[in-house]
Parts: sequence; C-alpha cells; structure tokens
Amino acid sequence: MESLDDLFMHFLQDVYYAERQLLKALPKMAKNAQAPALKDAFTAHREETVQQVERLEQVFEHLGKRAKGVPCEAIKGLIEEAEEVISESDTGPVRDAGLVACGQAVEHYEMARYGALIAWAQAIGHKDVVGPLQQTLDEEKKADKLLNDLDRK
Amino acid sequence: MESLDDLFMHFLQDVYYAERQLLKALPKMAKNAQAPALKDAFTAHREETVQQVERLEQVFEHLGKRAKGVPCEAIKGLIEEAEEVISESDTGPVRDAGLVACGQAVEHYEMARYGALIAWAQAIGHKDVVGPLQQTLDEEKKADKLLNDLDRK
Repeated sequence: MESLDDLFMHFLQDVYYAERQLLKALPKMAKNAQAPALKDAFTAHREETVQQVERLEQVFEHLGKRAKGVPCEAIKGLIEEAEEVISESDTGPVRDAGLVACGQAVEHYEMARYGALIAWAQAIGHKDVVGPLQQTLDEEKKADKLLNDLDRK
Repeated sequence: MESLDDLFMHFLQDVYYAERQLLKALPKMAKNAQAPALKDAFTAHREETVQQVERLEQVFEHLGKRAKGVPCEAIKGLIEEAEEVISESDTGPVRDAGLVACGQAVEHYEMARYGALIAWAQAIGHKDVVGPLQQTLDEEKKADKLLNDLDRK
C-alpha cells in the first residue's frame, strides 16, 4: 500500500467482504432471537445490508474497479462471537441480550470503517463516492441505536 | 450461559483479554507510526489501558471472582489488521492513516463492549461496578475522538 488510494481500496475490499459475511450471519441471528422486535431488527438490517452491498459495488464501479472482497479477520471474529453466544445459551432473554451486544459490536466496527473511508475519499478527491458511503454510515448508526434501545428497555 | 450474570461474566472476561492484548499491540503501533502526535496518542492510550486493566481487576474482585480472560477472536482480528497495515506499507502518512483507522476500530469495539457491560451491570444490580466501567467507556470515546481529529487534520 503506497498511496491513500491503495489504502482506500484495501479497506473498501475489507468492508465489502464484511458486509457479504453479514448477509449470511444476520438471518441466523434473526432465527435465534426470541423477542419479535429483535428478530425484526436483524431481518430489517439484513435488507439494508443488501442495499449497502449494492452501494459498495457502485463505488467500485465508479472507481473503475471490479468489486471484490479481501478476507477480514475482524468481522470473522465478531461473527464467531455471535455464534458462540448462540451455541452457549438457550432461546430467551439471555441469548437475546448477548445477540444485541454482538450486533452492536458489528455496527461499531462498520461505523469505524465507513468513517475512515469517507475521510479518505474526501482527502483523495473521490467526492462522488462520499454520498453513498455516508448513507450507509448513517444506517449503521441507526441500527446501533435501535439495538441499544431494544436492550435498555 | 443461563443468566445475565453469566453473560456479564463472559463479556467481562472477553474485554479483559482484549485489553491485555492491546497492552502488547499499542507499543508496536506507536513504534510504527511516523507522526509524533500519533505516536503520542498510542503511547498515552497504552498508559490508559494499564489503568483500564486494573479497573477490570477491581470489578472481578468486587464480584468475588478471579480475574481471567477468555480468548476473543474479534480483538485478535482487529490487531491482525493493524499488523497487516504495518507489514504492507512503509513508514509515512499512508501507514499512519491505516493505523488511525485500525486504532479507531479497536476503540469502537471497546465502546460496544463497555456499553453492554454497563447496561447489564445496571440490570442485574451490580451498581458499584458501573462507575469504573463508565470511566473506561468515557476514555475509549475520547481516544476515538482524538484519533479522528488527528486523521481529519
């Protein structure tokens, strides 16, 4: 990685990989949640994630690159923690609380990633991709807040 | 994990492991940063992390448990990403920007973890441990903001 462009592309591929892993993980989290509101939150966020993946593909296209992911150890670890909560607890409020915490950790990870991508896109003059990245960042923040409100009720 | 107490203890052990891993990772991040302000930020946060580990040990003690960590795949992945940035870039502003992003991802992970621990501590009546956990959460937020300000200058 020799330039901010290289760094931007690496982290774009990283978050693309992460979002696609989440497409597979979120239905499992929804299925294992007990509270209907939590099930709904994970299901709705899965729908949002479909859009977020498409938005990333538009960013790749805009930069004249083929959309591809690079394995991201952090998201693998975050998803593994959700699977651990599921395997070590029974259906009910304790598992739900654990799933909320894991979901929030994922949202926070994404917030950090999109925040960096937006700052770099601005710095290197890719102004056109700031809008879609910002839209996704706003969605991740809302998803985190929704999970927070569910857990603190 | 059958109760919120079990869940709290599991995530407490998880974040204890994470903080101790960071004690080892932060000096490496400081050493590989070029900008003096970034070096200082990582070094100062390492000092803070020493206090955060001690605070967690007080929480364990207060709950009558021995302080111990459980391996946390997420923090391992986050630290691995920082090591990847170091190995794939040379000393300079690109590596610094990557290290800021990795540092912020770590802070966000910890914010999510401490946020959950505080909510559960309140829910299960461990009021006495809320204070130290909140103090650490505030420090993680400040560390994230400091990195953000450094990167956006």
